[in-house]
Amino acid sequence: MTAVLSRMNDMPDTSDVTAYVNELGRRAATAARSLASASTERKNKALTAAAQAMRDNRARLLEANAKDVDSVKAAGKPAAFIDRLILDEDRVNAIADALDQIAALPDPVGRVLHTTERPNGLTIERVATPLGVIGMIYESRPNVGADAGALCLKSGNAVILRGGSESLNSTRVIVECLAEGLKAAELPLECIQMIDTTDRNAVQALLTCAEYVDLVIPRGGKGLVSLVRDQARVPTLLHLDGNCHTYVNAAADLTKAAAIVKNAKLRRTGVCGATESLVVDRSIAKDFLPMALDALGDCEVRGEADAREIEARIKPATDEDFYTEYLDTTLSVKLVDGPDAAIPFISEHSSAHTDAIVTEDAAIAERFLNEIDSAVVMHNASTQFSDGGEFGMGAEIGIATGKMHARGPVGLEQLTSFKYRVRGNGQTRP
Amino acid sequence: MTAVLSRMNDMPDTSDVTAYVNELGRRAATAARSLASASTERKNKALTAAAQAMRDNRARLLEANAKDVDSVKAAGKPAAFIDRLILDEDRVNAIADALDQIAALPDPVGRVLHTTERPNGLTIERVATPLGVIGMIYESRPNVGADAGALCLKSGNAVILRGGSESLNSTRVIVECLAEGLKAAELPLECIQMIDTTDRNAVQALLTCAEYVDLVIPRGGKGLVSLVRDQARVPTLLHLDGNCHTYVNAAADLTKAAAIVKNAKLRRTGVCGATESLVVDRSIAKDFLPMALDALGDCEVRGEADAREIEARIKPATDEDFYTEYLDTTLSVKLVDGPDAAIPFISEHSSAHTDAIVTEDAAIAERFLNEIDSAVVMHNASTQFSDGGEFGMGAEIGIATGKMHARGPVGLEQLTSFKYRVRGNGQTRP
Repeated sequence: MTAVLSRMNDMPDTSDVTAYVNELGRRAATAARSLASASTERKNKALTAAAQAMRDNRARLLEANAKDVDSVKAAGKPAAFIDRLILDEDRVNAIADALDQIAALPDPVGRVLHTTERPNGLTIERVATPLGVIGMIYESRPNVGADAGALCLKSGNAVILRGGSESLNSTRVIVECLAEGLKAAELPLECIQMIDTTDRNAVQALLTCAEYVDLVIPRGGKGLVSLVRDQARVPTLLHLDGNCHTYVNAAADLTKAAAIVKNAKLRRTGVCGATESLVVDRSIAKDFLPMALDALGDCEVRGEADAREIEARIKPATDEDFYTEYLDTTLSVKLVDGPDAAIPFISEHSSAHTDAIVTEDAAIAERFLNEIDSAVVMHNASTQFSDGGEFGMGAEIGIATGKMHARGPVGLEQLTSFKYRVRGNGQTRP
Repeated sequence: MTAVLSRMNDMPDTSDVTAYVNELGRRAATAARSLASASTERKNKALTAAAQAMRDNRARLLEANAKDVDSVKAAGKPAAFIDRLILDEDRVNAIADALDQIAALPDPVGRVLHTTERPNGLTIERVATPLGVIGMIYESRPNVGADAGALCLKSGNAVILRGGSESLNSTRVIVECLAEGLKAAELPLECIQMIDTTDRNAVQALLTCAEYVDLVIPRGGKGLVSLVRDQARVPTLLHLDGNCHTYVNAAADLTKAAAIVKNAKLRRTGVCGATESLVVDRSIAKDFLPMALDALGDCEVRGEADAREIEARIKPATDEDFYTEYLDTTLSVKLVDGPDAAIPFISEHSSAHTDAIVTEDAAIAERFLNEIDSAVVMHNASTQFSDGGEFGMGAEIGIATGKMHARGPVGLEQLTSFKYRVRGNGQTRP
């Protein structure tokens, strides 16, 4: 088992977690400097070698993952949680394939984004550069760590992975496989490190490591929001909750709408682009709610008295329901009086991730697309399309829910910064 | 005097500064919603009417400014500080002209940045949107407030201005003139507000007003760095110190180099793109230092023993000098042994704003442009070109020194976010 050999034999001491994370940061910053100028070929070699290591070590990865899954089952975690954590042969192969796919994507570093020649003869180029050191906080989903490591590597950034503590054993093997790739390409192993402790203070340490960390990407639900807001002393690119809406307007094709709602809620309930709240114009509720409930099958639908009067299968909703990202087979439903009520309701309750309208009225659709200020706004399509792959980006690290730097799917290009290269021949400014 | 009339007659109470700033934020957020969909014509009308109000109220503005200048003189502030604060007829006209120029720039909102049609028929557009509410913290420079107000307005953002407390009287009149413009265009006056108190806690209140403020732009020197890092709970676009370097390489044309260094340091000493540190290859120091000192005239040059041995006019430098943004007629000088020493020295001491190399060796120039990770890197040009106007952006709110969102000059485009508009005809995701 070669992968084991590649773990750094000078792993820093984890007993003082702040000092530990700081040391990881220091090493990452050094690695980032050489990675920034690494050739595309070298980075791709690391990625394909890592993919091969992932395949070669499949049995070992599955064994480590089984350990994680056993603990989580013993702790009585919900099925959706276990589903995100668990690996099988197909999923390991998919992780390896994703690494090969990221190798095949264009290198985002060094792209000349804009060139201008000034009247005084100065040539000004805006050119894409790596961000530096990225801290990645994510759920107990082993594939996210592999994707994040690969995307950061390809975009020339060193990364420090902090996966959910329930996936620690899986993450270790994944990082070892990525290290195999780095070794094969003669890149510093510190380009991809993990926080190898379940100490929860490590998250705070990462969020405050301003000396070395250029960006933290926190992925997670509502619980992370206040933690990040209170503690972050470094720039963050929030990947927070997806409380997504599908609004079925009175002018909708109801058959189309029922199919969209079913897909938006149920295709995969655990993804952040899943619709959590259905908003329906009151004037079509009598026709549409039964169709929607039929389409949604066993999904639990929660609504207020007005909706329950129309459709007895709907269970009572509290106010809290309309702010909830279920990530499960549960959906809230709200009746409204047209776009004048739907747009403010969605603006108030949405987490500004993805919101969709279903309507055949083009003017109302345009109004919705303009007035809803979410990262992704859709017309007559399932919110589950909110995904970097579906957007043609090749791969994504997640969906940014803030407005700064990147919004929506974050792929390779979004993991870069830029600088201006100015070339002159002795110009001085008058 | 019509301008006075336009001040809001329901100014919130400033006695509880946190509640006060929060109330400004709440009003700004409401105003931002209508401003986001305001037409280009309406925004331009507000800008040109504000320019006219500025000209009409020149005498009043100069009177208010004189009050500010008197207090500052009484407090014994340095000449450079007073120069940034003081207005005269020409400067007021320049402020008004800048408003007209911003009106003439293209509207950054609604630009379609990218369009893609997916194989499944979905059309995905990335379209520029305003950020929302921007808090602007800046020095006692009245023109900065006018520029920032106008740039935010044109980019569809509501702004809360927090100018240096020494410029409070000037800022009040400037905001009144901007309000005249908003009134003429029938836009909410709360699109441009100021923090009308010198209470220093207002800065913290603005940096923590996460409910309403989408972005704070802190402009200033080192003093702001730790304040922002410790206190900010909202995204920030740092405009911090400009410790800029000019490196004169052994292969430089020394005459060209002396002219560049003179311009880079002395054209205007108070701008953030001014060179603060001169780095010289030891092998040419004997020839170049006397030329540089001649060119620099009365400028105080501080260096270590090796430089002073060559050029007696150089005064002693401490370590601190190499981290100092003088913003004055003072310059530090460092002798190094070629690019292998110059690049790490600059990387260590630069504030990553703007750094330049002077050399006739193209390979060394390219290496410098690639390896120095500053917002702007230059070859054979004066660092004083680091400016949005000089870059062809038309106008700038400042120079961003972080790596996220925008880097270097921040003009209208950099004050926008974007969202994805997805149009389908009933697509569901397989």
